[in-house]
Amino acid sequence: MAEEHMASKRRPRHRQPRGRDPSPLERQQPWRQIHNSYRPYEILSADAIEAIHHASLEILHRVGIAVHAARARDLLVRHGGVLGDDGRTIRCEPALVEAAIASAPSAFAMTARNPARNLRLGEGFLAFSTVSGPPNCADLASGRRPGTLADLGNFLRLSQGFNCIHMLGGHMVEPLDIAVPVRHLEAGYLCLTMSDKIPRLYCHNRQRSLDMLELVRLSHGCNAEEFRSRHAVFAVINTNSPLQIDAAMADGIIDMAEWNQPVVITPFTLAGAMAPVTLIGALAQQNAEALAGIMISQLTRRGAPVIYGAFTTNVNMRSGAPAFGTPEYAKAALISGQLARRYRLPFRSSNINTSNAVDIQATYETMMATFAAVSGGVNLLHQAAGWLEGGLTASFEKFVIDIEILQMFASFLSPESVDGDGLALEAIAAVGPGGHFFAAAHTLERYATAFYAPLLSDWRNFEAWRQAGGLDALQRAAALVKRALADYVEPAMAPAIRESLRAYVERRSREGGAPVN
Amino acid sequence: MAEEHMASKRRPRHRQPRGRDPSPLERQQPWRQIHNSYRPYEILSADAIEAIHHASLEILHRVGIAVHAARARDLLVRHGGVLGDDGRTIRCEPALVEAAIASAPSAFAMTARNPARNLRLGEGFLAFSTVSGPPNCADLASGRRPGTLADLGNFLRLSQGFNCIHMLGGHMVEPLDIAVPVRHLEAGYLCLTMSDKIPRLYCHNRQRSLDMLELVRLSHGCNAEEFRSRHAVFAVINTNSPLQIDAAMADGIIDMAEWNQPVVITPFTLAGAMAPVTLIGALAQQNAEALAGIMISQLTRRGAPVIYGAFTTNVNMRSGAPAFGTPEYAKAALISGQLARRYRLPFRSSNINTSNAVDIQATYETMMATFAAVSGGVNLLHQAAGWLEGGLTASFEKFVIDIEILQMFASFLSPESVDGDGLALEAIAAVGPGGHFFAAAHTLERYATAFYAPLLSDWRNFEAWRQAGGLDALQRAAALVKRALADYVEPAMAPAIRESLRAYVERRSREGGAPVN
Repeated sequence: MAEEHMASKRRPRHRQPRGRDPSPLERQQPWRQIHNSYRPYEILSADAIEAIHHASLEILHRVGIAVHAARARDLLVRHGGVLGDDGRTIRCEPALVEAAIASAPSAFAMTARNPARNLRLGEGFLAFSTVSGPPNCADLASGRRPGTLADLGNFLRLSQGFNCIHMLGGHMVEPLDIAVPVRHLEAGYLCLTMSDKIPRLYCHNRQRSLDMLELVRLSHGCNAEEFRSRHAVFAVINTNSPLQIDAAMADGIIDMAEWNQPVVITPFTLAGAMAPVTLIGALAQQNAEALAGIMISQLTRRGAPVIYGAFTTNVNMRSGAPAFGTPEYAKAALISGQLARRYRLPFRSSNINTSNAVDIQATYETMMATFAAVSGGVNLLHQAAGWLEGGLTASFEKFVIDIEILQMFASFLSPESVDGDGLALEAIAAVGPGGHFFAAAHTLERYATAFYAPLLSDWRNFEAWRQAGGLDALQRAAALVKRALADYVEPAMAPAIRESLRAYVERRSREGGAPVN
Repeated sequence: MAEEHMASKRRPRHRQPRGRDPSPLERQQPWRQIHNSYRPYEILSADAIEAIHHASLEILHRVGIAVHAARARDLLVRHGGVLGDDGRTIRCEPALVEAAIASAPSAFAMTARNPARNLRLGEGFLAFSTVSGPPNCADLASGRRPGTLADLGNFLRLSQGFNCIHMLGGHMVEPLDIAVPVRHLEAGYLCLTMSDKIPRLYCHNRQRSLDMLELVRLSHGCNAEEFRSRHAVFAVINTNSPLQIDAAMADGIIDMAEWNQPVVITPFTLAGAMAPVTLIGALAQQNAEALAGIMISQLTRRGAPVIYGAFTTNVNMRSGAPAFGTPEYAKAALISGQLARRYRLPFRSSNINTSNAVDIQATYETMMATFAAVSGGVNLLHQAAGWLEGGLTASFEKFVIDIEILQMFASFLSPESVDGDGLALEAIAAVGPGGHFFAAAHTLERYATAFYAPLLSDWRNFEAWRQAGGLDALQRAAALVKRALADYVEPAMAPAIRESLRAYVERRSREGGAPVN
C-alpha cells in the first residue's frame, strides 16, 4: 500500500456519503477495558508449579545470572547477591529472591494522556497492544518492503482507530528511512501525537529511554514529580538467554523503576537453542531470568510496577530458528500464566506466528497462541495485532484480521448471566415444543445486541456471498484496512503540548540524538 | 479435483521413487488413542451449572418434550412419564429423569473390525471423527459441486490414511449420484471396505439404520450375540428443537440401545431461533433435550453407551441462519463440557465454521471451536476434519488443514514431564550464562522428537520460502491432498467378509432398499 493511497488526516469520522457502507470504525465494539472473570485454564498441578519455582531458585543460587551493568550488579550485591570471579555473574540465595520479589504489585493502574484511555492491568484486568519492532511491513497490494515513517503513521492510524487496541506496542514497524540517532525521537513524536493511547518505550540504549520518558512526560503536560506519581509508559525488558541481562536492559529496569514506570520482564527462552530442549527446563530458566529482572526492579524501588513476561517457545528443528504458535508455545503460555499467578503478578503473553504469508497457517498459529493466552489468564496481550513472519514483518491485513480475533476474545470473556432472564424458563414454556423463538418477547428485547457482530467474518449463504463477489477473508481485510485508514481521526492535543514535543525533538536532533549502539 | 486425478488403489505405501519428498502419510504422527490429563477449562461456577441442571429438570417437568414415536412414548409412560392431552408431549418428574440417566456409563470401549483401531471414549480418552453429511464437496482445482460416490471414496482415502482420524464421521459427503433407497447401502459398503476405522450410521430412517447395523455386523464377521457384546458403530441423534424428538430419532435411540451400540444425543439448539436468545437459556434447553434422549436410551437398556452431545450456537442476526465458531459457540462448548461432567458422561463437541471459502475466517472459527472443545474436555470431537460453509460443503483442502490442527492438539495434550530430566538443571548449569544448548548432550538426546513436526506449516525463513515458490498454506494443502490420495492403501479384509457385505448390499438393493422419508 503506497503512501499516496493512504488516509487523509483529520477527516471527520461520521461524515460519509449517503448509501456508503458503515465504516469498520463505526461498526466495531466500543472502547472498554476488558475483565476476565473466568477461572484460568491450568495444565500443570500446583506441585509441578512449585517444582519449577524451586528449580528457578536453584538456578539463581547455583548457576547465577550474568548482569552486564555495574549499577545493577552493585544493587544486587548491596542486597546480598554474591559476585562471581568473572565480575559479572551474581548468585542469590533463595530467601533473597523471594524477599525481593514479594513487593511487586499484583495489579496497577496506567494513566494515558487522555484519561478516557486509562487502564488497569492485573487481577483479571487485561489489555491488548500492537505488534512491535518489525523491520518490514507488507500489504496485499504492494507486498513486503522495509518500513518507513509513513508506514508507521499508517499503523498508528489503525492502532488509534480500533478500540480493542488498548495500548501501543511501540513502533508497529521500524521507520528505517529515519537515521538511527534520531529515529526514536521522530517515531516517539508520531506515537504520542497520532494516538492518545498508552505508549511503549524501548530500552535498547539508555539515552533513547530517557528521551522517550521526557517526551511522554511532555505529552502529559505535567512536571517530573507528577509524572513519577503515574504509570504512563511501559517497556519490555528481554533477557539475553541463557541467564544474562545486558547492560542497556539492566539500566532500563532501573531507570523505569526510578521513574515508577512499568516494565515487562520477558526472557526469550527458545527451547533447544538458548534454553533446554525440554519445555519444562526452558520454563525453569525463563522463570529464573524473570525473577532476576523483577528482583532488580523491586530492589530499585519497592512496589515498582512489573509484569511477568513469557515468550518461551521451541525452535524449528531443521534451522534452529524460533517457531511461534506451536503446541509447545501454547503449553508454555499456559504454564507461564500459572507461574505469574504463583507470584501474584500481572502476566504478559503474545499473539505470534511463524508464517511468511497472511494465510491459514498464520491464523491457526495466531489462534493457538491467543486462545492459550486468554484462557491462561493473560493481563497484557502484547504483539496482539499485525505480527507476521516470526516478527520480521508487520502486515496491514493481519492487523485487521487480529482486530476481529481480539474482538471475538473480548466477547468470549463477557460472562453469561445465569439468572432468571438468562435461563429463559418463561420463554421456553411460552414457546413450547415445536415452536420457535424468533418472535418471542424475550428474543425481541435482546436480539440486536445478543451476539458478537463481526467486522470481517462473512456469514451469508454461499450464493449471496458469491453474488457479492466471493471475496475471501484476506481480500475483505484489505478493504477494511483502506477504509479504516481513510476514516482515521487524529486525537485532540493542546497546541502548547504539541509544540513542546516538537521543540524537544528538534533540540535533541540538533544535539545529534542518541548514540548508536 | 476430478476423479481421474485421484488415487490408484492398493499402491504400496512406501515404494516411492528415489528423491521424492516423503509422503504426508509417512511424516504424520503414529496412530494412537489420545488421552487428556489436563484439568478442563471451566468458565461457569459449579453453582451456575447446578442452576442450568435444575432449569432443565423444570423444563422436562413443566413443559415436557414431544416424542413422535409410540415406542418411545410408551417406554417413558411405563416408567412414570405423563402423556399430555396432545398425545405426544411427555412430562417427567425430576426424580424420574435423575434415576433414569444415572445408569449411563462414564466411559466405554469401542471395537473396530481391525482390533488395532479399537478406542476408548470418556474419562479423559478422546477421539476425532470426520465431517459428516454435506451435500457438496469442493477442492481448489475444481471448485464446489454436488457430492458423488467417487468423492466419498476419496474422502475415505484421506480418513483412512491420516492417523489422527480415529473414527469415520459417517458419509464425509453425500453421494448424490446414488438413488436414495440404496444410497445407505452403497455408501455403507464403501465406508466398511475402504476403512477399518469405527463407522457411524444414520438414524434418519429405521430401515437404513437396521441395514447398516447388519453391514457392520458382517464386517466384523460375528454373529448377532457377539455383535451385541461389543460397541462397533455409533449414531448421532439430533433433537428437533425446541423440545421434540422425531420418530426416526426416537426409534434410533431405542434400536441402538437394544443393539448395545453408542448414540450421541445432540440437540441443535440455535440461540435466537429454535432456542432462547440468551446462551444460558439455550443451554438449559439443550440440556433438557439431551437428558430426555439419554433417558430413552437408559430406559431401553440400563448401561447402554451414550455420549452427551452439544451443538448450541447463535444465529446470524441478519438471516436467522446458524453461525459456527463464534465467541458464543466457544462459551457454549465449554459450558456443555461442564454439564457432561456434571452427569459423568462422555462429551461430544465439534470443529465447525461458517465460512464459504477455505480461508482465514474458516481457520479462526475452526480454532475457536476446537480449542474450546479440547480445553473443555471433549471426548468425541465430531466433524473434526473437512467441514466448510456451515456444514453444506466438505472441502478436501480443509480436511488436510484440519489434520494439521488435530495433530497440533494431540501434541498439545501430551503432558510435559516435570522431573529431573524435564527440569534440566544439570544442562542449565553445564551451559551456564551466555552459552547455548545446541550441542548439549541433554539436547542431542532429545532433539529429534522433542517438538511437534508439522505436515503443513512452513517454518523456513522468508527468502527460503519465496525461493521454494512462496506457496501459501492453502496451496500447500492442495498438494498434500493429492499426495495423500495417491498414497492410500486399502486395509485388509477377508474375501469372505467382503463377499458377504457385497451380497447383502445386492440383495437389499434388489428388494428396493429402504423407503424414502
